Amino acid sequence: MKKVTVYVTLKAGVLDPQGKAIQESLNSLGYQEVKEARVGKVIELTVDDGPDLEARVKDMCDKLLANPVMEDYRFRVEEAVQA
Amino acid sequence: MKKVTVYVTLKAGVLDPQGKAIQESLNSLGYQEVKEARVGKVIELTVDDGPDLEARVKDMCDKLLANPVMEDYRFRVEEAVQA
Repeated sequence: MKKVTVYVTLKAGVLDPQGKAIQESLNSLGYQEVKEARVGKVIELTVDDGPDLEARVKDMCDKLLANPVMEDYRFRVEEAVQA
Repeated sequence: MKKVTVYVTLKAGVLDPQGKAIQESLNSLGYQEVKEARVGKVIELTVDDGPDLEARVKDMCDKLLANPVMEDYRFRVEEAVQA
């Protein structure tokens, strides 16, 4: 069993209204030092190991997990820690 | 200037409908090896450096960025890379 961690972030230059809202909220709470906030996703997959796992994970990202127009992704494959 | 990366994830045992939907979608796309998916947030903050930055970031997480009832968080502080 493997644990795949996929990080999906907005491409540079893409407007991030959620990030903007977080930055403004933090500023209004008194945290003036926060100049910018950008929000992304972390998707943790528990998968059965397989010969071409990395290629299949790339496919999963291209087909479903990330929007190629607006988002970049990177992922890491590790041994799953038995709970 | 510092870059703070905050990872917000659902606590173990908390139902993750978004993760369930992703897992089922991947299975229906033919990726049967995916047994579970869990979704979290990555929040990247660009902040001015300050004496008690770590304590203030912890405060930001406790007050706004993470829901203490359902979510865990961890963060990392690094030098911001000048774009």
